[in-house]
Amino acid sequence: MSIETVSEQRCFGGIQGTYRHTSTATRGEMTFAVYQPPAVAERACPVLYYLAGLTCTPETFTIKAGAQRVAAELGLVLVAPDTSPRSTGIEGITDAYDFGEGAGFYLDATQAPYAERFNMYSYIVDELPGIVAANFPVDTARTGIFGHSMGGHGALTIALRNPQRYRSVSAFAPIVAPSQVPWGEKALPKYLGEDRAAWATYDTVSLIREGRRVDGTILVDQGEADQFLAEQLRPELLEDACAEAGQPLELRRHPGYDHSYWFIQTFVEDHLRHHAGVLG
Amino acid sequence: MSIETVSEQRCFGGIQGTYRHTSTATRGEMTFAVYQPPAVAERACPVLYYLAGLTCTPETFTIKAGAQRVAAELGLVLVAPDTSPRSTGIEGITDAYDFGEGAGFYLDATQAPYAERFNMYSYIVDELPGIVAANFPVDTARTGIFGHSMGGHGALTIALRNPQRYRSVSAFAPIVAPSQVPWGEKALPKYLGEDRAAWATYDTVSLIREGRRVDGTILVDQGEADQFLAEQLRPELLEDACAEAGQPLELRRHPGYDHSYWFIQTFVEDHLRHHAGVLG
Repeated sequence: MSIETVSEQRCFGGIQGTYRHTSTATRGEMTFAVYQPPAVAERACPVLYYLAGLTCTPETFTIKAGAQRVAAELGLVLVAPDTSPRSTGIEGITDAYDFGEGAGFYLDATQAPYAERFNMYSYIVDELPGIVAANFPVDTARTGIFGHSMGGHGALTIALRNPQRYRSVSAFAPIVAPSQVPWGEKALPKYLGEDRAAWATYDTVSLIREGRRVDGTILVDQGEADQFLAEQLRPELLEDACAEAGQPLELRRHPGYDHSYWFIQTFVEDHLRHHAGVLG
Repeated sequence: MSIETVSEQRCFGGIQGTYRHTSTATRGEMTFAVYQPPAVAERACPVLYYLAGLTCTPETFTIKAGAQRVAAELGLVLVAPDTSPRSTGIEGITDAYDFGEGAGFYLDATQAPYAERFNMYSYIVDELPGIVAANFPVDTARTGIFGHSMGGHGALTIALRNPQRYRSVSAFAPIVAPSQVPWGEKALPKYLGEDRAAWATYDTVSLIREGRRVDGTILVDQGEADQFLAEQLRPELLEDACAEAGQPLELRRHPGYDHSYWFIQTFVEDHLRHHAGVLG
């Protein structure tokens, strides 16, 4: 449970920090970022996990999303994990932007040589919350999760599989059906093998069609000028699955916005208010 | 006056763009960033120049300061130039973080081999405003300037030397007396020679002591945990000069804040409101 402080800096009256620890789930050193709002001086605060997309690190959201201002106001602790284990030494593991390091897809791999270290699902769901609870003044009964693109996929699948643990969920431009789009069709067989039943456990649309639900409304923002919209993201598949299942979904489509953090920063305040409204 | 669009992306209802052009002042290609708020669709807007510090590029403020949200609300165009000419090919010009490329100090060099291309003062004051006016819907009669560290030095000296042109000025953790601190004592003789009278034309404290003034109040924010506070920044020199000269100054000292953009993003809204209050 011990962590090393890489840096801590004052921001909006709170503390933006970067921390390192040795992970049992991913069998190596992991880095994560935490923003503590000023309110932690007085009470344990709700905690909101942000899962980032392909190629990202804990710095991406932390630097580019502009979320600290709102988290300071609302009294939310923000946790930004990495997107995969690092320095795995697996041959070719950094060659592609959409598979391997920086592209862990928030699953537990079952296939060699990835199964030993690519266990981001267990890291995010089981290991990191314990690390955070042991080292920061968070009220773990009030935990939410959100993310972007591959991280939106991570947030949605994790919330659907653990609805008691994550009381609020939202996503920016999520991959909602990896089993049906090129990013998933490339990564899932490598990490999980050819059995599509295994893929379905990490597929938002499949999970909803199987009967998984979250309490409350899923908030999703999607830019209509997103370069990955038609081929990789396909929010209409989520819309159809939620409609048929009776899962409340607020899907907002924004003309002119792309897949970038310029889009995320524009709407991040709405997401934090969505989570704070549930988490209190 | 022609510019090339590198990228344009929707952000807070406006457009965040990056542009490239060939500069006559610096005799090479320069890149700059512009944020256009939604209000430009209806009217020419006030324009606010941000000068960045040592090592920075047009991306630094644009990505890290979180200023677009407030600029969108207030109807301000934000312009973030580079901090020096690039790819100058001068021997050793990228070896140090505090001299040469990325460290132009917003002056016109007089010494070989720097004089040919290191003319950031002329670039910022004379050339870039023409480029901006020709390509963006700005009301140049309503121009303000601010900056950070070396860029705070740039903003203050440029405003003091051109008070009719820049109607509002502010700075984060500025270098206020380069003639008296190590960063300036290293860079100024290389760019300007050994004559300290030449240095004084690019020294905020010297300019104020010589009788230069700006209309209205200079807003300065300074973190008290800034690692450069005592040796390089010395805001008390500005405080003393302004007090003796009767130049209005609002110097705010913030316990716990350092020299980073975590500090800047915390107070950037106050700066934009300061400028908008003057520029209308």
